[in-house]
Amino acid sequence: MGSDSDLPVMKAGAEILKKFGVEFEVTIVSAHRTPDRMATFAKNARARGLKAIIAGAGGAAHLPGMVAAMVTLPVIGVPVKGSTLDGVDSLHSIVQMPRGVPVATVAINNSTNAALLALRIVSAENSPLGREIRNKLDKYVSDMESEVMAKVERLESGGWESYTVKK
Amino acid sequence: MGSDSDLPVMKAGAEILKKFGVEFEVTIVSAHRTPDRMATFAKNARARGLKAIIAGAGGAAHLPGMVAAMVTLPVIGVPVKGSTLDGVDSLHSIVQMPRGVPVATVAINNSTNAALLALRIVSAENSPLGREIRNKLDKYVSDMESEVMAKVERLESGGWESYTVKK
Amino acid sequence: MGSDSDLPVMKAGAEILKKFGVEFEVTIVSAHRTPDRMATFAKNARARGLKAIIAGAGGAAHLPGMVAAMVTLPVIGVPVKGSTLDGVDSLHSIVQMPRGVPVATVAINNSTNAALLALRIVSAENSPLGREIRNKLDKYVSDMESEVMAKVERLESGGWESYTVKK
Amino acid sequence: MGSDSDLPVMKAGAEILKKFGVEFEVTIVSAHRTPDRMATFAKNARARGLKAIIAGAGGAAHLPGMVAAMVTLPVIGVPVKGSTLDGVDSLHSIVQMPRGVPVATVAINNSTNAALLALRIVSAENSPLGREIRNKLDKYVSDMESEVMAKVERLESGGWESYTVKK
Amino acid sequence: MGSDSDLPVMKAGAEILKKFGVEFEVTIVSAHRTPDRMATFAKNARARGLKAIIAGAGGAAHLPGMVAAMVTLPVIGVPVKGSTLDGVDSLHSIVQMPRGVPVATVAINNSTNAALLALRIVSAENSPLGREIRNKLDKYVSDMESEVMAKVERLESGGWESYTVKK
Amino acid sequence: MGSDSDLPVMKAGAEILKKFGVEFEVTIVSAHRTPDRMATFAKNARARGLKAIIAGAGGAAHLPGMVAAMVTLPVIGVPVKGSTLDGVDSLHSIVQMPRGVPVATVAINNSTNAALLALRIVSAENSPLGREIRNKLDKYVSDMESEVMAKVERLESGGWESYTVKK
Amino acid sequence: MGSDSDLPVMKAGAEILKKFGVEFEVTIVSAHRTPDRMATFAKNARARGLKAIIAGAGGAAHLPGMVAAMVTLPVIGVPVKGSTLDGVDSLHSIVQMPRGVPVATVAINNSTNAALLALRIVSAENSPLGREIRNKLDKYVSDMESEVMAKVERLESGGWESYTVKK
Amino acid sequence: MGSDSDLPVMKAGAEILKKFGVEFEVTIVSAHRTPDRMATFAKNARARGLKAIIAGAGGAAHLPGMVAAMVTLPVIGVPVKGSTLDGVDSLHSIVQMPRGVPVATVAINNSTNAALLALRIVSAENSPLGREIRNKLDKYVSDMESEVMAKVERLESGGWESYTVKK
Repeated sequence: MGSDSDLPVMKAGAEILKKFGVEFEVTIVSAHRTPDRMATFAKNARARGLKAIIAGAGGAAHLPGMVAAMVTLPVIGVPVKGSTLDGVDSLHSIVQMPRGVPVATVAINNSTNAALLALRIVSAENSPLGREIRNKLDKYVSDMESEVMAKVERLESGGWESYTVKK
Repeated sequence: MGSDSDLPVMKAGAEILKKFGVEFEVTIVSAHRTPDRMATFAKNARARGLKAIIAGAGGAAHLPGMVAAMVTLPVIGVPVKGSTLDGVDSLHSIVQMPRGVPVATVAINNSTNAALLALRIVSAENSPLGREIRNKLDKYVSDMESEVMAKVERLESGGWESYTVKK
Repeated sequence: MGSDSDLPVMKAGAEILKKFGVEFEVTIVSAHRTPDRMATFAKNARARGLKAIIAGAGGAAHLPGMVAAMVTLPVIGVPVKGSTLDGVDSLHSIVQMPRGVPVATVAINNSTNAALLALRIVSAENSPLGREIRNKLDKYVSDMESEVMAKVERLESGGWESYTVKK
Repeated sequence: MGSDSDLPVMKAGAEILKKFGVEFEVTIVSAHRTPDRMATFAKNARARGLKAIIAGAGGAAHLPGMVAAMVTLPVIGVPVKGSTLDGVDSLHSIVQMPRGVPVATVAINNSTNAALLALRIVSAENSPLGREIRNKLDKYVSDMESEVMAKVERLESGGWESYTVKK
Repeated sequence: MGSDSDLPVMKAGAEILKKFGVEFEVTIVSAHRTPDRMATFAKNARARGLKAIIAGAGGAAHLPGMVAAMVTLPVIGVPVKGSTLDGVDSLHSIVQMPRGVPVATVAINNSTNAALLALRIVSAENSPLGREIRNKLDKYVSDMESEVMAKVERLESGGWESYTVKK
Repeated sequence: MGSDSDLPVMKAGAEILKKFGVEFEVTIVSAHRTPDRMATFAKNARARGLKAIIAGAGGAAHLPGMVAAMVTLPVIGVPVKGSTLDGVDSLHSIVQMPRGVPVATVAINNSTNAALLALRIVSAENSPLGREIRNKLDKYVSDMESEVMAKVERLESGGWESYTVKK
Repeated sequence: MGSDSDLPVMKAGAEILKKFGVEFEVTIVSAHRTPDRMATFAKNARARGLKAIIAGAGGAAHLPGMVAAMVTLPVIGVPVKGSTLDGVDSLHSIVQMPRGVPVATVAINNSTNAALLALRIVSAENSPLGREIRNKLDKYVSDMESEVMAKVERLESGGWESYTVKK
Repeated sequence: MGSDSDLPVMKAGAEILKKFGVEFEVTIVSAHRTPDRMATFAKNARARGLKAIIAGAGGAAHLPGMVAAMVTLPVIGVPVKGSTLDGVDSLHSIVQMPRGVPVATVAINNSTNAALLALRIVSAENSPLGREIRNKLDKYVSDMESEVMAKVERLESGGWESYTVKK
């Protein structure tokens, strides 16, 4: 992430990765404040064994695109909502990359989906790890479905008037 | 893609994949006009050996998100610009997915980047194919750099006043 | 609705339907988390005697459009405002449907109007139920008018300086 | 429609209604230039046997909402794109109706969907006409599907490189 | 104003008019809930001696434009910010009037300026009232200037670090 | 107007004023290129007998607001659409004036309405000129209505399929 | 700044200038409420020895552009977010200046960057002051980097789960 | 500039600089395609004697911000309009820089103003060059004024009806 102020947004993604039991690291790499660190980080990423990079940043968010310019790994960008413009500035800065340098952009503030996308990427590979993640993703999806069905049941049995939304 | 009218936009991506020499298929799957075909397509995708799905659609673009809801492969969404709203409606419909179902969104009309992202995904895997694609991606990046440098030279030697932009 | 978190928004519509004394049901059908349930729900809707379907969803809101793709009943979409983008993403995802598959879209978060629109649809039919609803709608409209006129009177008699707005 | 300049946009909807063989009328009712005519039109609509009203207008589009304020029939609004703002002004003026007076809004310039929505409304009624329209709508949907499938076949047999998009 | 919920926004304008000592009235006229009242109000406005009409409304704000369609007096529209879209929907519905029916639109929620604009309109007439208002407007402007100059002095003498902004 | 490039947009308004037979002048006053001329123009406007000022400008359009800051006459602003942003930048720069300095804003590029608004302002005054303009405005409105009715007749007698829209 | 209500936003910039030890002044100059003061201020700026002017304003923010029209010094505009439109109106009013009169615009509410830009401008000059500021700017940048590196270390040593973001 | 396709937009700025007789260079530096070249370019800029850097780029425009992160010279960003989003994506990517790294942003596609801003920056310095540029800028401004005044005269003498706008 580009700043430690992005951590509250990015934490949800880290929790997903932890829950799936994959190896990952969380650090701060600022495109604007530590450009050399960013270059080193990006250029060494393959050699260090990374398979995907999740980059979250707000405002004129250059981190995801610049990292994608310096390594050909899949880079996932998380637009982080700032104090103005509702995250649209960040979304534009991340998703509108020119031809040649893609960034896989997810919804504003949605680091959960960034993590799940990274896992889907790993799941595409034909290997024991790929198969393990695939199974866990299938389970994750079926757990989401069960969770909805439990709410359906509670709603239909108890009635919509007394139903309370739980966080 | 959701309609054959998206082909002019999506063609550039197909050309990248062809150039990289990977196996791929191009077809039409409409979320709204062929919902059953979409479900069949998505649910069989893994079994048929697909590693990533690129879905391009315009307007209220539901194809990428619905496919991502029905298979845990990485799904890449290409917002296609329609006759109004400049592609913003499509971008919103593709990128703003709820927690749990990610779509890797690229820039409006940028199927080139969708293809390159798919290739980056394959390049992440530890396999002969992965290594082959990685090498080709690295070459693609260095070719882009050379292309820019050739323009730099032409611009600096000939001067900006007489420089003509070639398509 | 696509998630139980939409209930606080959708409740107002349910209260209108209850007040009008028509039969209706409230449930959760998630396009992304329960796609099969959605297909079953949509395809059986006519056979189960539904005359209209109100679908509320936020973000990349695919529920209304996908239901409209699977049943030819009138489908009414309620864009639900999320934590970013002020409901514009949801509005775009619901209203900008391609030719062939209409969704009747109402204002952001305005489930009251979705319910009133469903009632107007029923009121169009030439039947005892149609006439009953028509009369109730006419009364609803004239009650709204009376309510405004009562406020006018209170405002004009008491003066604007001391008038207090009641919820 | 609010002006004869909206006819090129609204014509597609009229053609759908003609194709379905339902009775309908096409006329101009301007909220701003003929407000009295609008009031007369709206108030007599039920007595004249109308079951739904499609209102298309651009810019500060008041026609759909004002008609909906004067008759409790379902009113379908078509935002028409003008020379600036890409139809967003019209969309806002039509869809953002206050609680109590709904307008069923379709996509910008999409009178086809307005007509199909009107037909879906009629299809909801339990009558010979309702059943007839329902059957025609189901056929319309399955024709759309066949049309897509024919394109799929042409694309898959001829290949994406030589495929030409026909209007 | 279109609803008594607009009163907190519109009050500031009424206070300006009161301060200037002109005759004015404050009432509720809803385009959507009391369309007949609106027509009567607009059509009688000249005969009742009104010189300008200030109309404030939110969302799909039809009141200012519809009143302007029914009387040729200057109509001033105040877009009122609602719970979504930050007043942009209201601004579009008020300012984007078609050729032939103008609405003098002021800033979102800025009823103060609506009142000052009405006073400027009266000040344009060659009459004792016109001259009186003109003088009061000139004084208003010079009071604003003095107020700023007092702040300048306080800021420059006390220093920016200890300056406190007073409401 | 702020630049002679605004003339094609502003001409329609001048034609309205000419048609109504009122005295008016058309000139160029640039806030950014001739700020002193602007100050002189605004400060002398009342003394020269002007009753209203129409100011059209594009982009960061400061002319209407700056003129309104220097004279208490009613100032009418016409946002002019430039080569980017569809006139939204100009609309924002004109309509969003702070409390104390109103600009009567009309639709983007709609100088016709600016002229009609100026005429409505004059019509509000209790004088022979006021009455004359009032009558002409009433006639203008009833001519617009007749024009619509002629189109209605042509459309209804000839049918919508063969109707051609005339400029 | 255009109003003392902008001080909370502009203060951060003043603190940067103070920290760098350069001479500067903070005052209120309202384009709309004190247009003559603005003209005097701008026209005397060079003679008084100013090297750059930072102008912050909200809504229809005319101050930066008008000052830039009256003096050829570099003028830096700070869009200030108001109670509606999230600062977009101010951004448009400041950045979209016509050819001939530039305003150096920084991010919404970001007076820190306005101050740093002013310092960069001074740093460009070949003089002892220029060199002093250049050195201080280089130190500022390297301090920012150190600050990030300290956070990196705290994050990596303590772990992301227990890391707390400090203001 | 980030790509040679930006040259048609950036040329106008180069022509201004040439006209003012200052030394400058025009080249291509792509943040995404030549990140190393960008770093070298930025880091050597001071040593090579540059006083300001003008960077134009479209879409997710990272060039201006990244250059500003690597050198403390004033960096001027020109948002270049692309084939979608009307330059808003580029404007957001350039202007919304985080605290600490300013980019002086000018209007979309307005390289003329970027050049004039660079000249204003040089004019701020207390040196023969500064004074020369200052004088030329003052002349430029007074030429603009004369140009407007010539148009005023042509318009007022010839009349608005026959005036033709010259490019």
